Amino acid sequence: MYHEYQDRIRHPLLRERIQSAAAAAALIEDGMTVGMSGFTRAGDAKAVPLALAERARQDPLQITLMTGASLGSDVDKVLTEAGVLARRMPFQSDATLRAAINRGDVMFMDQHLSETVELLRTGQIAPIDVAIVEAVAILDSGAIVPTTSVGNSASFAILADKVIVEINLAQPLALEGLHDIFIPKHRPQREPIPLMTPRDRIGTSAIMIPPEKIAAIVITERSDSASTILPADEDTAAIAAHLVAFFEREVALGRLTERLLPIQAGIGTIANAVMMGFIDSPFRHLSMYSEVLQDSTFDLFDAGKLDFASGSSITLSAAKGEQVFGDIGRYKDRLVLRPQEVSNHPEVVRRLGIIAINTALEADIYGNVNSTHVGGTHMMNGIGGSGDFARNAYLAVFATKSVAKGGKISSIVPMVSHVDHNDHDVDIIVTEIGLADLRGLAPRERAQAIIENCVAEPYRQMLREYVAEANRRGGHTPHVLEQALSWHVRYGATGSMLPEQGSQVS
Amino acid sequence: MYHEYQDRIRHPLLRERIQSAAAAAALIEDGMTVGMSGFTRAGDAKAVPLALAERARQDPLQITLMTGASLGSDVDKVLTEAGVLARRMPFQSDATLRAAINRGDVMFMDQHLSETVELLRTGQIAPIDVAIVEAVAILDSGAIVPTTSVGNSASFAILADKVIVEINLAQPLALEGLHDIFIPKHRPQREPIPLMTPRDRIGTSAIMIPPEKIAAIVITERSDSASTILPADEDTAAIAAHLVAFFEREVALGRLTERLLPIQAGIGTIANAVMMGFIDSPFRHLSMYSEVLQDSTFDLFDAGKLDFASGSSITLSAAKGEQVFGDIGRYKDRLVLRPQEVSNHPEVVRRLGIIAINTALEADIYGNVNSTHVGGTHMMNGIGGSGDFARNAYLAVFATKSVAKGGKISSIVPMVSHVDHNDHDVDIIVTEIGLADLRGLAPRERAQAIIENCVAEPYRQMLREYVAEANRRGGHTPHVLEQALSWHVRYGATGSMLPEQGSQVS
Repeated sequence: MYHEYQDRIRHPLLRERIQSAAAAAALIEDGMTVGMSGFTRAGDAKAVPLALAERARQDPLQITLMTGASLGSDVDKVLTEAGVLARRMPFQSDATLRAAINRGDVMFMDQHLSETVELLRTGQIAPIDVAIVEAVAILDSGAIVPTTSVGNSASFAILADKVIVEINLAQPLALEGLHDIFIPKHRPQREPIPLMTPRDRIGTSAIMIPPEKIAAIVITERSDSASTILPADEDTAAIAAHLVAFFEREVALGRLTERLLPIQAGIGTIANAVMMGFIDSPFRHLSMYSEVLQDSTFDLFDAGKLDFASGSSITLSAAKGEQVFGDIGRYKDRLVLRPQEVSNHPEVVRRLGIIAINTALEADIYGNVNSTHVGGTHMMNGIGGSGDFARNAYLAVFATKSVAKGGKISSIVPMVSHVDHNDHDVDIIVTEIGLADLRGLAPRERAQAIIENCVAEPYRQMLREYVAEANRRGGHTPHVLEQALSWHVRYGATGSMLPEQGSQVS
Repeated sequence: MYHEYQDRIRHPLLRERIQSAAAAAALIEDGMTVGMSGFTRAGDAKAVPLALAERARQDPLQITLMTGASLGSDVDKVLTEAGVLARRMPFQSDATLRAAINRGDVMFMDQHLSETVELLRTGQIAPIDVAIVEAVAILDSGAIVPTTSVGNSASFAILADKVIVEINLAQPLALEGLHDIFIPKHRPQREPIPLMTPRDRIGTSAIMIPPEKIAAIVITERSDSASTILPADEDTAAIAAHLVAFFEREVALGRLTERLLPIQAGIGTIANAVMMGFIDSPFRHLSMYSEVLQDSTFDLFDAGKLDFASGSSITLSAAKGEQVFGDIGRYKDRLVLRPQEVSNHPEVVRRLGIIAINTALEADIYGNVNSTHVGGTHMMNGIGGSGDFARNAYLAVFATKSVAKGGKISSIVPMVSHVDHNDHDVDIIVTEIGLADLRGLAPRERAQAIIENCVAEPYRQMLREYVAEANRRGGHTPHVLEQALSWHVRYGATGSMLPEQGSQVS
């Protein structure tokens, strides 16, 4: 065993700590707070959490689980089914866990992704007992080299009493050198984050902790779960085309150059499709300062459009993952992975002047955006990094298809049923119908721009009628309060936001 | 005239540009964008805008008016009555203008106060044609020394084609040296803001512009309008006491020291009363990193509690103003006034770890806060800096009395009718009833904490019943959507959120 993992565990004494996943999981006790690696399915701990669930089936226990963001490998599903999760933060995207959250069985803290470790560092939430971090290697010094994400792993390991490392042999050793670990100092000694371009390296290439904190090492060889993004369709291609045309106008007006400004793109099919739209655009020497790097990042590299990409994780489809991770050396000097506290930090986002492109679940006529709550009540995934980026961006874009469920839901409503991003923070709304540029507009003007540019019939006419009545009642942000949420109520009652045949629109 | 103002206008050639307010106002043409000094009634241009209104009565014209924040001297009132304001940003607090905004006659852009000049600098909103800046002096170099506020004046002057300076003889020359003007570079050359403590000086003591841009100088001698804050009453004293007790617990838990962290306090009676609460607290060597410095700042200096205060303006009651400005030298080495872009900058707020204390118009059971819109539709003043601070703070506190209008309005409602700060950004809700610590809580727990700690009867029981029904329906953030805004609707219909005698609570 000693020699077998020499390249992966370079601190010789630490090789003695190799254990089974079950033995490592035994370090976790009922009531503990556990911090795990994993960000958008990338670089998650895969063996110990499943062993913990296995154990919990005989010997029930509950923990508070913190991660970077969402996990793959059905970890959230299995832990939920085993009843292990009492509390969960700051993000998730698993159907089983989501149902438990919405039943009130798991207490979920939906947080801005840059903020979780600030709360931990200042003792404002319960401290981490055990951190579980997936790694490609442990260095001579005991420092940990993460895999396909950094997420919150570095601060979790630094702040935890004990650290369990999962060395994943399926993750190429060539990932070493990709990471840049910078940890802000405690206040009041905090200094500026010395990052001035997306490519700046400001930290160390591994997570520096005292090797004696590494209580167990588990060897795994299971790949990251592949992303499930769909290829661009007619609607997402139209959204991308509207945005490219918008940026062309901005360049023509002298507000941006052909390099634009560093781009952040949210996770998912729409954001990926929007980024694909840049392949046939006139822009060049683009850069990304984002949290998750998806397939489109590598397509843009291959198309010669993108010079550099900074992120906190790499989450790819199965086919793209095979291509990229099989030949990561080809991309390595154009990539860096950072802690999500740095990739999403308001200081850096504001300084660089990010173009932030995120997805809305729904938006309202004034440009407030709901990113999280279906029908105002049921959590989908979480706000993720969208707030970190949108608030501090040079330009905050929110994209959505104009309708969902075959037209039974309008993504543009009189009033959103939950607000994650308010009108102060939303510059552009874009759907397949068109784009509303809200910069410098007052609410009544915003409503006009959104309704006329972004909404499909019959909802456009319904919104015109709503606004006409609201304006008659007056106000800076006119509403007909007793009807403001009526579309959602109607959908709950009838399965459609459309009025029933023959009834009055209200 | 040349010699008369030697101490105030030290660039000799510029003394030739002294004109009447009417002559200076003639530089402003119909359709122009004008940027004026003034932040929370402090340091506003007082003569030229009134002369412009006078002229507009004969010769109608309309402008876009930007300021730092709210103005005194009835400037917004007079300009509104003269029909001069087509567009207005980023904040106001005048009753006449407010009514015009709510009628839809003036297009008002309610903005985070740190962001207005970023939009200007990047050409995303219409450029400034003329800036009007109140000053205590113009230096040999032509640089402008502001008076009791910096606000957006520096960037307005730098970005404008022409600058009009109002030299106000009523503002003591001893204000010179109080200001620290730092202007971030354009992107992508932007560097970190090198500010690491509230007392750091990082810029120049005056606004540096080419003297040839100064197109006119007007001499005035009208004082700033006094603030109208009320003394602490039983309720605001109770709010202050709850907060002081909270901070004592935080110190006991080792999360804070007796110095706490730099404090920001919003404008108004409640925030001022909360700050007064620190006078009899055990905390020492406090500091402020805030936007407006009110009476309480100087009371805390005089009580030996406060070491240093950084702000963007000084707005005092008549009596306190006489005391402070009559003897400003006594406080000067403990004060600095900065551009609001710096006083409110997300980068600095996050770095310093601000304790942000702001006022809520209403909050809901999940901790979403409405700071701006009465009944969800009618603008009160604007979001001001509360978003800049709350989002990036170490701790975001929102304070409100539990009821308004003699108990006919509950300040805690099932769902706020407008969201300025969502649950992600709100750590503490405090009313005269008590304090809810929301850190680390999931929405269902937040509702419990707020209802049981912050709400007076009969609203507490009404909210318990709402939550019980909402929980039956399920969701991460349970609501009864068709009743969520019913308290506001009822208030609109009956003048009270209380159900009519004999009717069912709903």
